[in-house]
Amino acid sequence: MVHALIFDVFGTCVDWRTSVARDVAQHIPQVNALDFADAWRAEYDPAMARIREGQRGYIALDNLHRENLDRICERFGVTLPDPESLNRAWERLDPWPDVVRGLQALKRKAMIAPCSNGSIALMTHLARYGGLPWDCILGAEIAQAYKPSPAVYMASCAALQLPPHEVMMVAAHNSDLAGARAVGLKTAFVPRPTEHGPGQILDLEPTEAWDLIATDFLDLARQLT
Amino acid sequence: MVHALIFDVFGTCVDWRTSVARDVAQHIPQVNALDFADAWRAEYDPAMARIREGQRGYIALDNLHRENLDRICERFGVTLPDPESLNRAWERLDPWPDVVRGLQALKRKAMIAPCSNGSIALMTHLARYGGLPWDCILGAEIAQAYKPSPAVYMASCAALQLPPHEVMMVAAHNSDLAGARAVGLKTAFVPRPTEHGPGQILDLEPTEAWDLIATDFLDLARQLT
Repeated sequence: MVHALIFDVFGTCVDWRTSVARDVAQHIPQVNALDFADAWRAEYDPAMARIREGQRGYIALDNLHRENLDRICERFGVTLPDPESLNRAWERLDPWPDVVRGLQALKRKAMIAPCSNGSIALMTHLARYGGLPWDCILGAEIAQAYKPSPAVYMASCAALQLPPHEVMMVAAHNSDLAGARAVGLKTAFVPRPTEHGPGQILDLEPTEAWDLIATDFLDLARQLT
Repeated sequence: MVHALIFDVFGTCVDWRTSVARDVAQHIPQVNALDFADAWRAEYDPAMARIREGQRGYIALDNLHRENLDRICERFGVTLPDPESLNRAWERLDPWPDVVRGLQALKRKAMIAPCSNGSIALMTHLARYGGLPWDCILGAEIAQAYKPSPAVYMASCAALQLPPHEVMMVAAHNSDLAGARAVGLKTAFVPRPTEHGPGQILDLEPTEAWDLIATDFLDLARQLT
């Protein structure tokens, strides 16, 4: 019996690529906005890796995004008068079309919470921007660690006071589900085949027999009935 | 400018006394349910004090409630077949009549979150039971400390990534507001003159010149316009 569903957010709930590109186009009209967004996002995993591997203490993702923005601006030959304003693009990401209605339906069946690498503040801004009806906010900040470190999934279950087998991780990324399954959570795969644009090659299909595989959050709600 | 409102919950948002007494009456019909609820709640502060003073590490309030229940059952000469079921009375506390509509109005003006001594799980259950539309859940658990320790207010501001003077603590208890003011938060007093029943003598009036004093959450929303 699943009593709580916890969700990856960037890519799984929200379309970060076209949303960030929209803000980039406003701030830096002279660059290709999608290329800039892709380059910015590509710095995400290496920045977290240094924390996962213990070379650096936990720092909120907002700050990593900000550091990465400086690096990408230099690469694109851009000087921003107010980089903090563009950094807040990550607080204004559009949910995929099924997400709000899907979460509303799922919330009637179980507790729902993000289990993202984003900070509590970032998740709060995203929820207010997109109308995501979370019951609480879990994830990296309460664990002071980054997914797929086991601590993040385990801290989220501990905060819910539930054993891992009563919690289901929902993600569009096979690696995230593998991290959750490794510590005993149930898993649901919801593909987002355009997260990385039309040329996406990763995560188009489930790579393991996850507990549930759904076409979107509304389908997931139907399957949980 | 206040960007977030954080709330005491037990007494300020919810009527714990009559709600707990209702569950006590169902589980232990032979005792005076309000007396039992009062006795149970009277153990709350001493239990937290041992943690505040460093005699014991942080333990979630759910567990302190459970320990206190055993003590009170012994005092009342009661043996419960399923004490955990009665302990969950704290997850089913009715909001005061103005709270849900008041929080909806306040949420349109600022971020709203509980800053309670209750755990993330307990706050999540209460929000789902009462329809409290929190943006996120802050308070004791993210600080691993109990109010009025400064760490609880400061950890809540830090999680919001806001300086204390942009955050307002809302409470029916003067001591809670004093704790928040001591570390730089704005303060709002909303009296709940029947929290402790008809004979209440504490917290009927503000004891300091708090930044706002409101009759209820709807009045607070009006004053924040």
